[in-house]
Amino acid sequence: MQAILTVGSVAFDSIKAPGGEVTGVVGGAATYFSVAASFFADVRMVAVVGEDFDDGRMQVFGGRSIDLTGLQRVPGETFRWKGEYSADLNSRETIYTHLNVFEQFRPVLPDAYRQTPFVFLANIHPALQLEVLRQVDAPRFVAADTMNFWIEGALDDLRAVLSRVDALVINDEEARQLSGEANLVKAARSIRAMGPKLLVIKRGESGVLMTRGQGFFAAPAMPLESVADPTGAGDTFAGGFMGYLASVGDLSDEAVNRAIIAGSALASFAVEDFGLGRLLGLRKEEVSDRLAEFKRLTDFKAL
Amino acid sequence: MQAILTVGSVAFDSIKAPGGEVTGVVGGAATYFSVAASFFADVRMVAVVGEDFDDGRMQVFGGRSIDLTGLQRVPGETFRWKGEYSADLNSRETIYTHLNVFEQFRPVLPDAYRQTPFVFLANIHPALQLEVLRQVDAPRFVAADTMNFWIEGALDDLRAVLSRVDALVINDEEARQLSGEANLVKAARSIRAMGPKLLVIKRGESGVLMTRGQGFFAAPAMPLESVADPTGAGDTFAGGFMGYLASVGDLSDEAVNRAIIAGSALASFAVEDFGLGRLLGLRKEEVSDRLAEFKRLTDFKAL
Repeated sequence: MQAILTVGSVAFDSIKAPGGEVTGVVGGAATYFSVAASFFADVRMVAVVGEDFDDGRMQVFGGRSIDLTGLQRVPGETFRWKGEYSADLNSRETIYTHLNVFEQFRPVLPDAYRQTPFVFLANIHPALQLEVLRQVDAPRFVAADTMNFWIEGALDDLRAVLSRVDALVINDEEARQLSGEANLVKAARSIRAMGPKLLVIKRGESGVLMTRGQGFFAAPAMPLESVADPTGAGDTFAGGFMGYLASVGDLSDEAVNRAIIAGSALASFAVEDFGLGRLLGLRKEEVSDRLAEFKRLTDFKAL
Repeated sequence: MQAILTVGSVAFDSIKAPGGEVTGVVGGAATYFSVAASFFADVRMVAVVGEDFDDGRMQVFGGRSIDLTGLQRVPGETFRWKGEYSADLNSRETIYTHLNVFEQFRPVLPDAYRQTPFVFLANIHPALQLEVLRQVDAPRFVAADTMNFWIEGALDDLRAVLSRVDALVINDEEARQLSGEANLVKAARSIRAMGPKLLVIKRGESGVLMTRGQGFFAAPAMPLESVADPTGAGDTFAGGFMGYLASVGDLSDEAVNRAIIAGSALASFAVEDFGLGRLLGLRKEEVSDRLAEFKRLTDFKAL
């Protein structure tokens, strides 16, 4: 097993969805990623919280293989975000984003993190993603996420990131926006020409599409009877994906396909409850069971 | 190999889509279904055309194992439909529907059709689907399609059909409308309680979801670089699905899963050109190659 370094946000989320509402629960991309990845591998987190992120809150990371040496606690308030989902959960509106301590955040890697073989740059300003890349020493596999805000507002920095990563993990809308292509096959070709040899496109309830070399791999979303809250599903996917790759230390096509399934399985749990609710109590046997369910869901004998 | 009986429309379609426009090309649910199914099995068609459906038009069925004894040619004009697709091809508007000879259509099965083991009731008035069921003699497997128009306007007849079929093949919007459930897992349970033990939900570019017994099976759509015209994709899927089942004469879960892939493969060709364009020139090796592509697209070793 090899370790994973991640940099991203730790936040207090307030979420309104048709099935309920929560206020000020621990969230953030680095949080979801780390909790998910820790089911498979050791995680090293680089992030920032404020003084309001007390020891009680810190318990979400407790009892997991998550190294918090790189988590800065500084004067001020933790990043806060509030979002509200549409009736079908397919779109959401941001009610507010208070960056707070995140506004002045500069990622600083503890020395012990510098040689981490797997690196995941969660969705933060691409200039900060580049700062992390400058501090790591010849990582084996680097993946990044991004969002519409940076595609519109920080494209030069984002292009610099793309030229330096092995993989990009984004959603279908972001893929279309970044490439200017409506068709996902064309979008994928265009994005891969910007740098990442491996592209993972997250499609929500339509599953995941991965492309690398000449091939495509597609995983459906697990059919779920009840979806409470999609917040963090994409970061949870990325955590399962990177966690699995680091756990097997293998980057073959076969391992990448299995990593897509691992990510999909973790994400299918994440949406079942609000915030981190479902992930925090999740047992390893439940993960194994769902991986087996994914096999049954998609498996057929060649015709 | 066992034969398949189908009843449905044969039409002249006019189609406008971002990539082009065609006028008065041969289409209709029974046409797409039969051409697709004939790649795997013998098809017996029950439908009606007008005097304007000349021998030249009839050539679309030529050189295929499609029995046209049940195709009535009557005075009047053939069913005509015109539709226009949105820029992303995800929705379409019907410009006109001229039922013409289809308005007085009553399906009459030639005696030689009555003992056909596989039956597909394409999307026509459920009262006509029931008339077909009254004329067949103990079929082994019956599947039906339907649409919003009958869910709204002929629900009693549709309920009677549902209580008598083994399988229903509909799209996700229709599944939600028929069940009144937004969640597809709940929608599927509700619809299966109406009769069909096997439910196939077509989800367009999100692929296909099938459920039977306690299990689900999901197939992605093949990632395609260019989609010209989605017209007939659903009927083509149904043709590949039923054709494969009839060809193997096996209704095990394993055979049904493979049939879903066969249907998905045929449908992935149908959308590549306008109307029947791609299907008419399609070679069996191309079908085999795409089935192998589907295997590569979805296959992974258990984790």
